[in-house]
Amino acid sequence: MTVSAGRVSRVVVTPVAFRDPPLLNVVGVHQPYVLRAIVQVHTDEGLVGLGETYADQAHLGRLEAVAAALPGADVFDLHGLRRIVAEALGESTGGAGASFGGMLEVSSAVDTVVSPFEVALLDLQGKAMGRPLSDLLGGAVRERVPYSAYLFYKWAGHPGQEDDDWGEGRTPEQLVAQARRMVDEYGFTAIKLKGGVYEPRHEAETVEALADAFPGHKLRIDPNGAWTVGTSVEMARLSGVLEYLEDPTPGIEGMAEVSKHTELPLATNMCVIAFEHIKPAVAADAVQVVLSDHHLWGGLRRSALLGGICETFGMGLSMHSNSHLGISLAAMTHLAASTPNLTYACDTHYPWKTEEVVKPGVLEFRDGGVAVPRGPGLGVELDEDALAALHEQYLKCGQRGREDTAYMQSIVPDFTPNTARW
Amino acid sequence: MTVSAGRVSRVVVTPVAFRDPPLLNVVGVHQPYVLRAIVQVHTDEGLVGLGETYADQAHLGRLEAVAAALPGADVFDLHGLRRIVAEALGESTGGAGASFGGMLEVSSAVDTVVSPFEVALLDLQGKAMGRPLSDLLGGAVRERVPYSAYLFYKWAGHPGQEDDDWGEGRTPEQLVAQARRMVDEYGFTAIKLKGGVYEPRHEAETVEALADAFPGHKLRIDPNGAWTVGTSVEMARLSGVLEYLEDPTPGIEGMAEVSKHTELPLATNMCVIAFEHIKPAVAADAVQVVLSDHHLWGGLRRSALLGGICETFGMGLSMHSNSHLGISLAAMTHLAASTPNLTYACDTHYPWKTEEVVKPGVLEFRDGGVAVPRGPGLGVELDEDALAALHEQYLKCGQRGREDTAYMQSIVPDFTPNTARW
Ligand SMILES: [Mg+2]
Ligand SMILES: [Mg+2]
Repeated sequence: MTVSAGRVSRVVVTPVAFRDPPLLNVVGVHQPYVLRAIVQVHTDEGLVGLGETYADQAHLGRLEAVAAALPGADVFDLHGLRRIVAEALGESTGGAGASFGGMLEVSSAVDTVVSPFEVALLDLQGKAMGRPLSDLLGGAVRERVPYSAYLFYKWAGHPGQEDDDWGEGRTPEQLVAQARRMVDEYGFTAIKLKGGVYEPRHEAETVEALADAFPGHKLRIDPNGAWTVGTSVEMARLSGVLEYLEDPTPGIEGMAEVSKHTELPLATNMCVIAFEHIKPAVAADAVQVVLSDHHLWGGLRRSALLGGICETFGMGLSMHSNSHLGISLAAMTHLAASTPNLTYACDTHYPWKTEEVVKPGVLEFRDGGVAVPRGPGLGVELDEDALAALHEQYLKCGQRGREDTAYMQSIVPDFTPNTARW
Repeated sequence: MTVSAGRVSRVVVTPVAFRDPPLLNVVGVHQPYVLRAIVQVHTDEGLVGLGETYADQAHLGRLEAVAAALPGADVFDLHGLRRIVAEALGESTGGAGASFGGMLEVSSAVDTVVSPFEVALLDLQGKAMGRPLSDLLGGAVRERVPYSAYLFYKWAGHPGQEDDDWGEGRTPEQLVAQARRMVDEYGFTAIKLKGGVYEPRHEAETVEALADAFPGHKLRIDPNGAWTVGTSVEMARLSGVLEYLEDPTPGIEGMAEVSKHTELPLATNMCVIAFEHIKPAVAADAVQVVLSDHHLWGGLRRSALLGGICETFGMGLSMHSNSHLGISLAAMTHLAASTPNLTYACDTHYPWKTEEVVKPGVLEFRDGGVAVPRGPGLGVELDEDALAALHEQYLKCGQRGREDTAYMQSIVPDFTPNTARW
């Protein structure tokens, strides 16, 4: 018997937009819509593999270049995909940070562009074999992947719109209520607070209120580098209630300095976001936990490599999230399920989302986690009507990139990003 | 369509012995036979996957324990295999160095025991899919894997037996003739000399004679830690003709000291032989090239991880060999083919071997390399008659472990291993 998932016949990249609440962070505030690109890779045998990624203009241009170059490729040739991407991008690989709202900058776009296509090829391999994608990553070591409740300071609604049903998130009490709703609805046992919005004392009070309200829950705060080294060390006194402190201050050097003064593990998805950052971070002992992200690290196989590196160098492993849809959630869940040393609950923005492109029924948050889809490949199916509607929304919404700072400044003109401000 | 490679129904471990010439090394001399274990993993759907590994008594006992525990396992569950091995071995994982002739010691046997079963499961996956094993490792990046001519100082024959057809290998002229035969027969363009046998000046003369006789060929010498740090630094003056210097002196500390005094890349398959050695070796900048070996590093997926680690930390990657048969050669070839940064010619003892367990026709050395088998899985088929004959030879030969030193001392009573002697 020969499975032939076949060769790529056609690739369709569809930008979509879905509604997002006004979630606050160090560089500004989430815009009314999140942009994502949905990648469909068709084969000459009629299978379709799915991928999901960012959708700023520069990234979309790169995705289209690869989509044009991919037909004819063997769906099992992941190394070949990488070559195709590198060739399609040529010299235009710089400035690949547009989708991170100004928070991150990566020196090469190759890994970021490879990612949705790699996921789609693995989805195709799994479909051809009738095997869940996690089987292609060595097999699931857990049936359910734990996620964290991801709390945000937020406005009650986007200016000029009605309040959303989460309401304002500013005071410790409001954040406890936000957490209560997430925990009640989904059973999360880990809670992450996105910080860097208010001055540190206020955010510390929020963490303490959460610790009081949810004894036994794992807590994290992530100010996205809003603090100085001194403030970071001081804030590490929260260590009694935190499982890790995420990116208190910017840069490997700054993190290494903080690390010297606290026993609390420091986590990052800002100073170690590509393979080139690992060696200097290890040499400086800058971080004790790396947040993987298959969108950024070149797909699922490369993220598994990152996991193996963390294990080898005695670093912990967690998972980062940007706002995303179900294709990404399925990929994140397969990856986490098949990564033995991913022992922290993964981050996800999923509960903030009210629109979707995959058919319902497979991805459900229960007991704080998502069960690994058992169907072939990713195990999720595209809802073509929903895709069309969200693409229409993309065309109409006017957003063409992620611009948290510009959006914030359109409302609060004197706002400046808070990096290492306090 | 659903591929079901199925579940493991039965595992057969067969120790075999094949004839080996009296090749000299730092701990003694190769015995008349090499012992290997051939692993056959049967599934409930009638497929058979193959693996090959060491066959000393302690290792055989561990393989049998796993063979008894494996039935029922899903052939895609590689993480599950690791759990099964760890459970089957329990506390008895120490002292896993018996198959290295006293040269190596690893602290845990888990990776070594996992290896042949992992290869067999990947062989089964490939067979179920009708895909070459390299496709399961991301796809072959080269159609042919380059190997090196592996030269040995040697006796003309085993004492009490007729001379073998390679004859004596002692003088530079004899080693040049040995190299000439290998290069003429197989087209190798890289040449490795196993050293640590004679005093360094003699071995340096051999290297220089090889450099003169084979201009343009890549040269290496591997004295297996026979030299002091001082001698190693002095021998590094050969750097004009060497592509790397392999294990001149023992230990991460010693290698790091040598490394400080030469620009010549230092390679190892002695001081970095398990994942636990990587962090200290990187911290000390002890080695610039790691020789992977899927038998030792836990199989093909873990070896791919090692490759990714080397890439991430800016270390080169080559491949180590022990005396082996065709199942190992096929696995090594698939692994090397699908490892983009494996840029050195791999080592192999294959040309020294006169007996085989796989059917002929697939694995052929030509133009200095082996073409990646195109058939499903490993792409090689067991010759049941040959297996039975080599098992019979195992039963009769009397060897039950690798004992280079004891065999040498039975002939040269005052021999002691040469580690850091010079
Ligand atoms: Mg973060
Ligand atoms: Mg060696």
